[in-house]
Amino acid sequence: MATRSALERARSALHLRLLAAQRRLTKDRRGAVIVLGGDDRLAASELANQLTEWFDARTVRICAPDDGAAEGRPFLWPYWQDVPAQGRITIVVGDWLTRTTIAAAREELAGESLRARLKSLRAFEELLAADGTAVVKVWLETPEKTLRRRLRDAEDTDAEGWVVTDEDLLLAKKSSLGLARALRAQGSGKNLPWKVVIGGAETKLRDLHAGLVIAAQLNQASRRRPAVAAKKPSGRPRGLLESAAPHPTLDKKGYGQQMAKLQARLGRLSRLAAQKGVATVVVLEGPDAAGKGGAIRRLCGQLDAAHYRVHPTPAPTPEEKARHYLWRFWNKVPAPGRLAVFDRSWFGRVMVERVEGFAKEAEWARAYGEINDFEARLAEAGTIVLKLWINISKAEQLRRFRSREDSPHKRHKMTAEDYRNRKKWDANLRAAEDMIARTDTPHAPWIVVSGDDKRYARVATLKAVCRALSDRLD
Amino acid sequence: MATRSALERARSALHLRLLAAQRRLTKDRRGAVIVLGGDDRLAASELANQLTEWFDARTVRICAPDDGAAEGRPFLWPYWQDVPAQGRITIVVGDWLTRTTIAAAREELAGESLRARLKSLRAFEELLAADGTAVVKVWLETPEKTLRRRLRDAEDTDAEGWVVTDEDLLLAKKSSLGLARALRAQGSGKNLPWKVVIGGAETKLRDLHAGLVIAAQLNQASRRRPAVAAKKPSGRPRGLLESAAPHPTLDKKGYGQQMAKLQARLGRLSRLAAQKGVATVVVLEGPDAAGKGGAIRRLCGQLDAAHYRVHPTPAPTPEEKARHYLWRFWNKVPAPGRLAVFDRSWFGRVMVERVEGFAKEAEWARAYGEINDFEARLAEAGTIVLKLWINISKAEQLRRFRSREDSPHKRHKMTAEDYRNRKKWDANLRAAEDMIARTDTPHAPWIVVSGDDKRYARVATLKAVCRALSDRLD
Repeated sequence: MATRSALERARSALHLRLLAAQRRLTKDRRGAVIVLGGDDRLAASELANQLTEWFDARTVRICAPDDGAAEGRPFLWPYWQDVPAQGRITIVVGDWLTRTTIAAAREELAGESLRARLKSLRAFEELLAADGTAVVKVWLETPEKTLRRRLRDAEDTDAEGWVVTDEDLLLAKKSSLGLARALRAQGSGKNLPWKVVIGGAETKLRDLHAGLVIAAQLNQASRRRPAVAAKKPSGRPRGLLESAAPHPTLDKKGYGQQMAKLQARLGRLSRLAAQKGVATVVVLEGPDAAGKGGAIRRLCGQLDAAHYRVHPTPAPTPEEKARHYLWRFWNKVPAPGRLAVFDRSWFGRVMVERVEGFAKEAEWARAYGEINDFEARLAEAGTIVLKLWINISKAEQLRRFRSREDSPHKRHKMTAEDYRNRKKWDANLRAAEDMIARTDTPHAPWIVVSGDDKRYARVATLKAVCRALSDRLD
Repeated sequence: MATRSALERARSALHLRLLAAQRRLTKDRRGAVIVLGGDDRLAASELANQLTEWFDARTVRICAPDDGAAEGRPFLWPYWQDVPAQGRITIVVGDWLTRTTIAAAREELAGESLRARLKSLRAFEELLAADGTAVVKVWLETPEKTLRRRLRDAEDTDAEGWVVTDEDLLLAKKSSLGLARALRAQGSGKNLPWKVVIGGAETKLRDLHAGLVIAAQLNQASRRRPAVAAKKPSGRPRGLLESAAPHPTLDKKGYGQQMAKLQARLGRLSRLAAQKGVATVVVLEGPDAAGKGGAIRRLCGQLDAAHYRVHPTPAPTPEEKARHYLWRFWNKVPAPGRLAVFDRSWFGRVMVERVEGFAKEAEWARAYGEINDFEARLAEAGTIVLKLWINISKAEQLRRFRSREDSPHKRHKMTAEDYRNRKKWDANLRAAEDMIARTDTPHAPWIVVSGDDKRYARVATLKAVCRALSDRLD
């Protein structure tokens, strides 16, 4: 009886510590991700439920990836959906390292593919931490004998509900123990180690132990902001987007013929992509009035409306602002077989946010790597990724502004900001050159399209997208 | 050449009219749903693309239900996902009436099930219109000969990409023409008729015609707000929630025993539901400090964290405020096999919004019917729906407020609003009685739980949920 009450006292004190840690997160405007991995899935689930009881449950959400919804998406996609807003807590069960351990034990991942996975996990954790999110990871390790008994008991009492899965049995194997340990070491972000908690039969004691570890980790995270060593771009490739050569042009007749042919071709390719379940992401960037909208409408003009979605990129909503800037784009990753076209995109981080000072230098400087990682995750999942910069000259932009003002069909496109942005032409150009140099990758290449002649630019855009799809599908 | 240029002039004028209609929507803070149905799916897709070109594309989205994502969800679910915010336009292809026509032609819907579907479509359209959304519906009807030629041509030129589906061929049948006409009449909300546009070979002319119809309908919608005849509750059942009888209680030992048994039982049932793909929605309502949160934590305490999600209901975000109040709940409808628990819910419309005057009388008065329709749609899709009112006495509430203030573990639950709300105890009680009387339905019953004894209330909550799942699953 004395022990019981000591345990209860300790749990009560822990409850207060966790509430205090949660208040501090709110005050500091930081989110927290609490990851519950390990070999005992039932224990992780119980612990998650206990934590929602201890924390103020209104700002806690449990993230448990659903295989159905995640099918054909990047591995990290379900975790991104639940990236917490500032002041919020996400508790992850069915976490990335446990699932990676299972895949490695089954040899679905090995060698290069396993190394790539572990690298992506490190990058993800570091990205969260760099954004100010507290990343707390608890690995529940249950002694083999205890675990086997727990699994046997569960089987016995509850034959109807498949409590115990093949994965549970796999994780309970002795050989998995060493594997998990190795992967934990290799798959953790810098200064973001897994904390091992020994599981056992006594639930309340285990949850107390895990809770104490979590409280300590939250406090530790609140004391430091990880140093972010991201280099500013240097030795930038000058002149990439500046050329004295006149932009190529296309006459009306040639335009009409090529457009009809290309739209039919893209129509065929997009139906093929839908059949084969291949997703595509097309990003359009470029100065104001570069003709992005017009190019997008021609791109999609003959597509089945069910096969594509165009995403404009207005200023972020409060919901979006409270999270990592990539969250709202992860949310829009296309389903298998679908095309997503982004009219401006995540590159805003290294363009407008850099130029206008909305993002600090450390923030935009590390964004190049984060963006490359994001696009690599898409490409790994089989998504075709391509990025087009529609390049226009400063003189052409002015002509278009004037023409927009004169046209009743286009006047709505002009805002007060347009001339203001124009004054920063050179800074924007410099940012664009850095962006292209640092995010042009084999799996997600940049294509610069000469844009002073709209007809030429639209045809070139369609051609580029057709080629990318055809390379994969034909 | 003369005709061509007359056509172009007319299209140019239409473009301006549509832009003006869109500006007016923004100014009036109204959304618009433009539905493109009919027997020619390709034409609807082309028209949707043309409309995004005419409108300012940044505030237009195309809604095209995706069979994969919508599997196991209510029929209207994909349309609800894309309900437009104020000032926004959603263009629907793959609309509710065309899909209903296909289902009826295949005799998947007939008799009562068909009548129920048509009724639900009428209710949905009327709900949108009553909320101020412009509902514009265009039915593209292509002469059979033309349609057959179009389908044949598409087959010929594009064998690779299954342009033509079985559904297209079905809609092209002469027998479908009369069926569609009958369903259009029966499946339309009051004063929300389908406008038939004759399709044909000449795309530009067809789109002009359809565009003119849409512009006219948008203007007409902007002139009127549909009269909303919703009756205030009358003859309310007094005393339902007021009883002099003491609340039942449960001692600690009995509580512990029953709780363990019930949690194990619900664990088994929830795994069974996951296996069978049966979704469940549980709503908890009740006065402040009724013990909703505690009841929810016991309810979910032994569930697999992957099987359920708890949704708190804070004040709506700006995104949510800009749409019909049910939108944010349609977004949280559980996937097949999952349990969603709502800590407060859509009933806020007829509780806090009514009592505080956030909703106009016409708005909350019609909400009872809208809510019953919503829950009926869930039930039709096979979702178990049940609603619990945890009832506490005014004196007990005060005791709990005081005890919360004294407890370091619970202090965070008290806000300045709590005492203010308490002053409206009687108005809240009246609203709750009306709510229960008007939304207690066979497919989504209310259960009133005596709440002055927390232990009793928690056990009663678990029992009620177990019974509902067991009735369906065992």
